[in-house]
Amino acid sequence: MSKDALKKEAAEQAAAMVEDGTVVGLGTGSTAAFFIDALIRRARAGLKIACIPTSERSAAQARDGGLHVVGFDTHRSIDLAVDGADEIKRDTLDLTKGLGGALLREKIVAAAAKRLVIIADAEKLVDWLGERTVIPVEVVRFGYEVTADKLRQHAADVKIRATATGEMYVTDGGNYIADCHFPHIADGGVLDRKLQMIPGVVDTGLFIGMAQLALVADEHGVTRYSPR
Amino acid sequence: MSKDALKKEAAEQAAAMVEDGTVVGLGTGSTAAFFIDALIRRARAGLKIACIPTSERSAAQARDGGLHVVGFDTHRSIDLAVDGADEIKRDTLDLTKGLGGALLREKIVAAAAKRLVIIADAEKLVDWLGERTVIPVEVVRFGYEVTADKLRQHAADVKIRATATGEMYVTDGGNYIADCHFPHIADGGVLDRKLQMIPGVVDTGLFIGMAQLALVADEHGVTRYSPR
Repeated sequence: MSKDALKKEAAEQAAAMVEDGTVVGLGTGSTAAFFIDALIRRARAGLKIACIPTSERSAAQARDGGLHVVGFDTHRSIDLAVDGADEIKRDTLDLTKGLGGALLREKIVAAAAKRLVIIADAEKLVDWLGERTVIPVEVVRFGYEVTADKLRQHAADVKIRATATGEMYVTDGGNYIADCHFPHIADGGVLDRKLQMIPGVVDTGLFIGMAQLALVADEHGVTRYSPR
Repeated sequence: MSKDALKKEAAEQAAAMVEDGTVVGLGTGSTAAFFIDALIRRARAGLKIACIPTSERSAAQARDGGLHVVGFDTHRSIDLAVDGADEIKRDTLDLTKGLGGALLREKIVAAAAKRLVIIADAEKLVDWLGERTVIPVEVVRFGYEVTADKLRQHAADVKIRATATGEMYVTDGGNYIADCHFPHIADGGVLDRKLQMIPGVVDTGLFIGMAQLALVADEHGVTRYSPR
């Protein structure tokens, strides 16, 4: 099975969990896009839901598919948020997110959700966060140079993210992303608290204690993980 | 003596501390404006400095006065930052800042400074932070309604700041300000860490352990406070 087929399989199972009359948080990224597709099909078959997206991209996909897109001005709480992840810590379901650039809105939606379900292919499972990817940190533009210096006191390497054409990557919130490489993260929660205290850091791609369930697909099917 | 005369007195003493060839952080607000005025006079008398301002307003005042305004792209560290405060905790010199709306840049500049000197009139001295003012918290626009709800779990009252004409107040960074009233703040550092962990909170107006000196003016003169 291709990686896309695996992501789709997990996305279908997450879409099957959505109940009529609920508010659903829509993640961002390739796996979340499969979930939105599956939701659109369910909505065409009669499911009535309101959706709060985590990016302009996901909002456009949802609207184009006829989903009812709302904001926090009308709905203050989300019943179920479904999103992908860059890394899933096997035991705790702590996550690394933000390689796609939408970490801030994803975290706000995740924090507003009664239940956060992560969908992924099995390659995303890790033993510790930072094992395979950098940790993205969203930083305000003003003084980003000194904020990056302060991040370097914790990280082995810090790079301000650039676009393919070499310009600074700018988030939906108008900020920059500092991609931080850590040789080993012993405790994601401790690291997250340290990074958050740096003035200029808006938020981090460490999602600690937020996911209640992960639907992880490999060639044998979809495995359900709960935090231990 | 008028309150302005007191602020001016403290501002003059801070300007006298600035050494030739250094990088100076310029605060924002009425007291900081007196400091910038005093610096302009010193620069006209020959003082050579580079200035990093904390707001468009302070940048304009400095430029109009002929000061050399730079950014963190050319200077990564500040020798001395001088700013006002809304409250100064008498013993620790922990501060409440941000009633003027520039807390984020003020905090980034303060954190980049080797030395932060606060100038104020004696009315700003308090026994605990939050005694006289709200604590401003800068929040991203996306989901600010749920971020405010989460702040309400800690604060007695939370109001999104509006302009005099009733529109949402928007910071230099494009964010909103949630003015949070706390009945009593036992430990500003603990509170700050809790608030910073809320997704959607960019930074808070609690400046804990940052000020090395406060120059506080009353009708008897300027008193120098160091953190105990």
